[in-house]
Amino acid sequence: MDSPQRTFSDCFVRRDGGLHSVSREVVAEEPLRIVLNGCPIATLMRTPGNEEELGLGFLLTEGIVRSASEVGAIAFCREGLGSPNELRITLANGDAVPDTPAHRMVYSSCSICGTEMIEDVASGISPFDRRPARLSAADIYALAERMRAAQECFRRTGGTHAAAVGVLPLNVDSIVVREDLGRHNALDKAVGAAARQGLDFSRCLVMLSSRLSFEMVAKAARAGFSDAAGVSAPSATAVALARRLRMFLAGFVRGETMTVYSDPEALASS
Amino acid sequence: MDSPQRTFSDCFVRRDGGLHSVSREVVAEEPLRIVLNGCPIATLMRTPGNEEELGLGFLLTEGIVRSASEVGAIAFCREGLGSPNELRITLANGDAVPDTPAHRMVYSSCSICGTEMIEDVASGISPFDRRPARLSAADIYALAERMRAAQECFRRTGGTHAAAVGVLPLNVDSIVVREDLGRHNALDKAVGAAARQGLDFSRCLVMLSSRLSFEMVAKAARAGFSDAAGVSAPSATAVALARRLRMFLAGFVRGETMTVYSDPEALASS
Repeated sequence: MDSPQRTFSDCFVRRDGGLHSVSREVVAEEPLRIVLNGCPIATLMRTPGNEEELGLGFLLTEGIVRSASEVGAIAFCREGLGSPNELRITLANGDAVPDTPAHRMVYSSCSICGTEMIEDVASGISPFDRRPARLSAADIYALAERMRAAQECFRRTGGTHAAAVGVLPLNVDSIVVREDLGRHNALDKAVGAAARQGLDFSRCLVMLSSRLSFEMVAKAARAGFSDAAGVSAPSATAVALARRLRMFLAGFVRGETMTVYSDPEALASS
Repeated sequence: MDSPQRTFSDCFVRRDGGLHSVSREVVAEEPLRIVLNGCPIATLMRTPGNEEELGLGFLLTEGIVRSASEVGAIAFCREGLGSPNELRITLANGDAVPDTPAHRMVYSSCSICGTEMIEDVASGISPFDRRPARLSAADIYALAERMRAAQECFRRTGGTHAAAVGVLPLNVDSIVVREDLGRHNALDKAVGAAARQGLDFSRCLVMLSSRLSFEMVAKAARAGFSDAAGVSAPSATAVALARRLRMFLAGFVRGETMTVYSDPEALASS
C-alpha cells in the first residue's frame, strides 16, 4: 500500500553467509519549515503527513499559544517539484508572536544549567492542582496497548516513534495516536490532532513510545497535560521537572507494570 | 557506584495491584553550550561526562573542521553552583570559523526539500572511493556485540543511546564506545574519543544503537566514515544520502543478520 509515510527500498538481507535481495519499507523523512506570521521559527526533520496537526501541536507544546483558538490559518505549501516543505501559520486576530518562556529559553544567549532550565520552563506553567485520583493503572496500560496496536508505520519500517492522547477515564473512542520518525513530532501531531477534536488536556493522559527526556516532559506540561507516561526511561531532569510541576510521570509501562517517578498520589488505588 | 552519568531516584513500581517503593537509577541530562572562538554555536541536551570528546566530535561530524589538528584548546567550564554548562573551543592558529556546507544548511533562511538537503550535505563531501572489500559481516556483528556489552549506563538506566567506532579489520583493542541520552551526542563522543586516539575514520566502521536518520548518516559521512551500521532502522533520506555518497549502510544488525541498504559490494564475500 502506498503512503507518504513510507517507501519501498531495494536492499539485501545478510543471512546464513549470503546476501539475499529483498524489498523493505523504510520510513520517509523530509524537512519542514514552520513559518509563523511570516517569520521562520523552526525547521523540523519529520515524516510527511498530518502537517497541520504537527504545526498546531508544535505551537501548543512549545508554549507559543495556549489554545487552538489562538491559531488562525494553517497552510501546508508544496513548492516546486520536490517534497512539501513549508507550513505557514498565522495567529488569530493578527496577534503578534508572544514572547513566551519557551521562546526565551530556546533563544537565550546566556549560559544555562539544569536547575535554571527547569525553573525557566516551570515559570511559564502553574503547578498542576491536586486533583481527584481519576487515573487508574488499568487506563495507563490500556492506552499503551492501544498505542502499540496502532503503530502501523513502526510495524512496517521499524523507524517511527508514536504518541497517544486519551481522555480519562479512558474513552476508547477518543484515543488519538500519531507516528513520526521524530519523537517530538509524534507528540506534536498527536497533540495537534487531539486539540482539533476539542479534547481538554487537563483531563487527558499522554503516552509516549520514546524515552521521557526533559524536552518531551516540558512539551507535555506546556500543552497542559498533568499526566504523562511512556514505555521507556525518563531522564533525571525530566523527573525533576515533573515533580516541580506536580505532574504524574510513569516510565517503563510494559504489560501490567510500570515505574512511577512523580505524583503517585494521582493513581486511584483500584 | 556514583557517576556523573546517572543518579538514583526514589520511585514506585506498580505491580500486582500495588505500589512498591524502590530506588532506580535514571540517566542524567544537562544542557551544554558549545562556544567556538567566542561565538555560541549550539546548545545540546546531553548526559554529563566526556565533554571535550563531545565538543571535538561535534566539530568533526558537523563538518566545521576536517581533522582534530584544526582544533586548538577545548575548555570545559563549570560555572557557579549549578551544573557544568559551557564548552569553550578555539580553532588552532586563530582560524576563523569556516563557512561549511553543514553550517549553511543549518542556518539557511530559504526553504529546503529532501533532495536539496541531500545535495547540500553531499556537496561538501567527496563520494567515497571504491575501496577494497575489507568489511566483513563478522566484524560488523562483532562491533555491535562489543557495543552492547559496553552499554553500562543503558543497563542501569534504560535511558541512553550508544555509538562505537572500530578500526577495520576489527581490532578489538581499538574499539571506542560512548553512551549518551542523545544519539547525536553518543556519536559525537565516540568520534571525538576516536579522533583523540588518532584513528583514521576512512578505515573505521561506525556502529549506532539508534535509528539511522538522515542527520546521523550525514554526521558519519562528514566525519569521514565510509562504513556505517546500526541495530535499528534507517530513514529513506538516510538511505538516499548513503547511496549518493557510495557509503556502506546496514541496519537491523542483530545477532548474525543485518539489512544492507547501500553499497553491498563493500562487504567481503567471506
